[in-house]
Amino acid sequence: MIGIGLLGCGRIGQVHAASITRLPDARLVAVADFLHETADALAIKTDAISQSSDAVIANPDVDAVVIGTPTDTHYDLIHAAARAGKAIFCEKPVDMSADRIRECMDVVTENAVPFMTAFNRRFDTNFSDIQARIGAGEIGDVEIVTILSRDPSPPPVSYIKSSGGIFRDMMIHDLDMARFLLGEEPLQVFAVGSALVDPAIGAAGDVDTAAVTLTTASGKICQISNSRRATYGYDQRVEVHGSKGMLRAENKLENAVEVATAQGFRRAPTLNFFLERYEDAYFSEIAQFVAALRDKAPMSPDITDGLRAQLLADAATRSWETGAPVAV
Amino acid sequence: MIGIGLLGCGRIGQVHAASITRLPDARLVAVADFLHETADALAIKTDAISQSSDAVIANPDVDAVVIGTPTDTHYDLIHAAARAGKAIFCEKPVDMSADRIRECMDVVTENAVPFMTAFNRRFDTNFSDIQARIGAGEIGDVEIVTILSRDPSPPPVSYIKSSGGIFRDMMIHDLDMARFLLGEEPLQVFAVGSALVDPAIGAAGDVDTAAVTLTTASGKICQISNSRRATYGYDQRVEVHGSKGMLRAENKLENAVEVATAQGFRRAPTLNFFLERYEDAYFSEIAQFVAALRDKAPMSPDITDGLRAQLLADAATRSWETGAPVAV
Amino acid sequence: MIGIGLLGCGRIGQVHAASITRLPDARLVAVADFLHETADALAIKTDAISQSSDAVIANPDVDAVVIGTPTDTHYDLIHAAARAGKAIFCEKPVDMSADRIRECMDVVTENAVPFMTAFNRRFDTNFSDIQARIGAGEIGDVEIVTILSRDPSPPPVSYIKSSGGIFRDMMIHDLDMARFLLGEEPLQVFAVGSALVDPAIGAAGDVDTAAVTLTTASGKICQISNSRRATYGYDQRVEVHGSKGMLRAENKLENAVEVATAQGFRRAPTLNFFLERYEDAYFSEIAQFVAALRDKAPMSPDITDGLRAQLLADAATRSWETGAPVAV
Amino acid sequence: MIGIGLLGCGRIGQVHAASITRLPDARLVAVADFLHETADALAIKTDAISQSSDAVIANPDVDAVVIGTPTDTHYDLIHAAARAGKAIFCEKPVDMSADRIRECMDVVTENAVPFMTAFNRRFDTNFSDIQARIGAGEIGDVEIVTILSRDPSPPPVSYIKSSGGIFRDMMIHDLDMARFLLGEEPLQVFAVGSALVDPAIGAAGDVDTAAVTLTTASGKICQISNSRRATYGYDQRVEVHGSKGMLRAENKLENAVEVATAQGFRRAPTLNFFLERYEDAYFSEIAQFVAALRDKAPMSPDITDGLRAQLLADAATRSWETGAPVAV
Repeated sequence: MIGIGLLGCGRIGQVHAASITRLPDARLVAVADFLHETADALAIKTDAISQSSDAVIANPDVDAVVIGTPTDTHYDLIHAAARAGKAIFCEKPVDMSADRIRECMDVVTENAVPFMTAFNRRFDTNFSDIQARIGAGEIGDVEIVTILSRDPSPPPVSYIKSSGGIFRDMMIHDLDMARFLLGEEPLQVFAVGSALVDPAIGAAGDVDTAAVTLTTASGKICQISNSRRATYGYDQRVEVHGSKGMLRAENKLENAVEVATAQGFRRAPTLNFFLERYEDAYFSEIAQFVAALRDKAPMSPDITDGLRAQLLADAATRSWETGAPVAV
Repeated sequence: MIGIGLLGCGRIGQVHAASITRLPDARLVAVADFLHETADALAIKTDAISQSSDAVIANPDVDAVVIGTPTDTHYDLIHAAARAGKAIFCEKPVDMSADRIRECMDVVTENAVPFMTAFNRRFDTNFSDIQARIGAGEIGDVEIVTILSRDPSPPPVSYIKSSGGIFRDMMIHDLDMARFLLGEEPLQVFAVGSALVDPAIGAAGDVDTAAVTLTTASGKICQISNSRRATYGYDQRVEVHGSKGMLRAENKLENAVEVATAQGFRRAPTLNFFLERYEDAYFSEIAQFVAALRDKAPMSPDITDGLRAQLLADAATRSWETGAPVAV
Repeated sequence: MIGIGLLGCGRIGQVHAASITRLPDARLVAVADFLHETADALAIKTDAISQSSDAVIANPDVDAVVIGTPTDTHYDLIHAAARAGKAIFCEKPVDMSADRIRECMDVVTENAVPFMTAFNRRFDTNFSDIQARIGAGEIGDVEIVTILSRDPSPPPVSYIKSSGGIFRDMMIHDLDMARFLLGEEPLQVFAVGSALVDPAIGAAGDVDTAAVTLTTASGKICQISNSRRATYGYDQRVEVHGSKGMLRAENKLENAVEVATAQGFRRAPTLNFFLERYEDAYFSEIAQFVAALRDKAPMSPDITDGLRAQLLADAATRSWETGAPVAV
Repeated sequence: MIGIGLLGCGRIGQVHAASITRLPDARLVAVADFLHETADALAIKTDAISQSSDAVIANPDVDAVVIGTPTDTHYDLIHAAARAGKAIFCEKPVDMSADRIRECMDVVTENAVPFMTAFNRRFDTNFSDIQARIGAGEIGDVEIVTILSRDPSPPPVSYIKSSGGIFRDMMIHDLDMARFLLGEEPLQVFAVGSALVDPAIGAAGDVDTAAVTLTTASGKICQISNSRRATYGYDQRVEVHGSKGMLRAENKLENAVEVATAQGFRRAPTLNFFLERYEDAYFSEIAQFVAALRDKAPMSPDITDGLRAQLLADAATRSWETGAPVAV
């Protein structure tokens, strides 16, 4: 039985707490939040205790911490947890600065603690199935990866301002997915972007519509496009073209009902938003984290994956800013 | 080169004329219609000559006749053509009376002329593919056939009155399809029906919504349903469940465009109506007729198929009238 | 908080137990099973107590019982629970005998206890959406209901022998679905059936392939077909054709990945079997039961729905035996 | 009645000849081919006369010429036909050199002859429907265009060598489609490419896998990817994301049959290759050309469209060669 301490009891923290209580091999021991009342409420609901972050990390019953706090707190929590010898599950991004992620890598390595970066999409039934089929050689060599990713509506401009920009905030998921599916590191990034959805996003120095092209040493190509708006819901599609075939994952819709009228055949909008769309993935990633701890198996995605995605996001940002392709 | 005479230059006759002019092995020699002007116009358009029916049948350049005249004229034309030694392609139904179809069979047999009954749906890309896959054993033994068939809107009541009723006029196509896919003769028919679309159809002694269950000696089952109305177009679906798998044909839509909005994902209505939906099938059936003549191959579907479908339609009508299953 | 006692800790009982522990308004108080060890194990896992059935029913903390025991024990448990004033959630079928269901209805009515019959499919996202859209008038008047239902593989013949036959054991779900979607009571049933999957099923006096036609007073028609085998998984489809449009629910597949190769485009098999396919529905039905208790709202489906489905299954069985349509 | 002269009786010329014979407003007057026997055979089949190119252009019964000869002959034929006052329908590309296309534009303008560039895909049912819906405002402002285009298998390397490269030979269709759907001129092109399908293509100085990003003045983005190979057929998809919704066209499959087995649900491969996939489009483009001549309406796509697509292909080639984005 793995004892888990939850740091951060907000929206995503509560998702993880619910997942942990469903796992036979794990127990939610303690929870912490900057807002003590939030932590207390979750503790009551889950039969855990409410403590400060420091106390959770120091708690001898805690084998692993799940970090779901704001990004700028990750660095310190990772350092403290690693030094306390705790396994770490950390929400993405590990940090906004690649250099600081490297420092986290150092402390994680020095203390030899298991570390999983929470790229939840890798655990989606569809995307993990695609990756497994690629691994099994079902489509031969990967040649072209196409990723289409659109949010249902843009966040407030206040959020945008501290988000690090669309490439680090939104596309980072797709950049990790690209690495996951390409099976080879991208060497070059070319990015374009526009503020088409909300001029205020442009005024804030960011874009809401963006496209990136990645290329690898062996010549594999990946195209990604992002939009901060999709009237039909949360659009999350992936396609991989290989020498022997093609794999693609369509969106998950709200249900499988088709309505036929004089206007034609209509199916439901997509599941909206990420909590619904990736509900299964959120559960699977924690389950996988616990299983890897139990079996002393390597973590995947690990902190290096967290770093590489961030480096790609940084390169994409620079490419967008300079108008030229950027080597990674 | 097969010389063809067309009897009946109405809507379906013109479809056949256009098909014949596209075939390298056939030539449209002469056309006839009760309305001489209609025949003359088509003759000019197709470089054929306009003659009376008798003259077309007697025309030495005519090897085969295509009969597209009203049903009550088929009997006499078949007799005349058979006696003149001409091959015959005849629109369904061969006749409204099974006894009279039997008499046509006799004259066709006596004169040993090739005869094809125009069940166009057998030549549809989808349905012929399904039948070929069944024949190749792809789904093992056929167990359940499901046929859904709906017209976009009901014909005028005046038409209904002389149509022979829904089972003989509309469902006869599905009854032939059932035989085509079951690969075994139905022994029993059970039918129900209601006038739900237009009360005037009920007042005329017919129904516009009907369902039939067929069973064969070995226990195969077929369910058919018909409606005279479908707001979303001409609904033509077929499904065959077998011991090793299932085959089904979805509708053909107007195009393959999907429109995504807040209401969900919308595709086009079905092709509407039979001239559009079965455009390819109409061409293929004439092509197949000409190819069989050229190669002296047996005709399929032949006049026996025309008879058996009519017997099933008669039995369905009787079952609906009596409320009891009827043996065929 | 509704206190719940679980009677029967087998496969379906465990599903219900898991659902109850996820509900904020309910608490699993006590569990019982003929096999005490099974009950004890579940009690430990769920923090409930393990008792005899009698003790569970008598337990003052138990407001409602969930009956998941073998069918032949339902009658006595319903009587005991009703007399003890407990609300009842009972697996289908309530009893194999319609007369005995009527006696259960009497005791339920006399003691005025809420009663839900567990027709889980009514709570499936797709089917409940369809029924809601019908209720909202989206497709006008219902005219034709088509239900296709196939199990992945047949149960052992030993099970078949005590199952009551395909109409009572398997099709009863579809007969309830028919009532749910028709919105009007069927007045007549016509059934056919064959043993095509396994001759031993035929030797045991049952069939494994069956089709039923239902008709209502206003002329609505429902066609149902069942097979005890489908190589591609658990096939559960429903379609409703109405005066203004059509609604249909496609199968739920294992995932949304498409594999394209020279053989074409392939998607995953269906979710297999009912525990996976109706996972959400099993949760929703208990949630709805608890919500109705909490809000003192009427139960749906209630015991009358249990009776009517059984009467339809009886009529279908009689129709299959006699070869004639049977009035309900 | 428009009299048409066909220059070039190869594969595509024969397609156009067949289309012309089906048009009520047009007559195929004369045909020419470098191989006289090819021209003679087509003349017999179509009731046209076989002449030299010069004679066809001089023929007073010829109102318009359809140019389907090798690309390097277009320039001279366009000059001759324009000076003879004939309307011109010219296969793409008009010429491999943008400068020479400009000279063709001059002679066409000076002689005021109608000119259509044969970008057949604009006339595809799906793509023209998408463009019409964009025009009607159905998805608001266009923001992201995604074009996926893959051939079933690569051409021989001998063909590659004289093709002008993948961007001019293959992607030019997609570049025209991008302009068609963006509704705004691309200002910048960024291209990457690899030889992944056949190393001999790389050795010949070309690539077989390529991706392009286009951006417009208002910030619209288009991503295109090409491969010279797709095991599942000829892949031709287009998607347009706009402020109010999304439009996409799926591939056209060989038929609409679905095969269900233990491996899942399989549909047919795509129509293979362009003659089948764009059969309707080839007919529609000639029909539209004739209709525009008859109605003295402007041509679309015209020679300017031919030039602009070529300029984009040139820019893409230069971007791929230099590794930097290229302004158009």
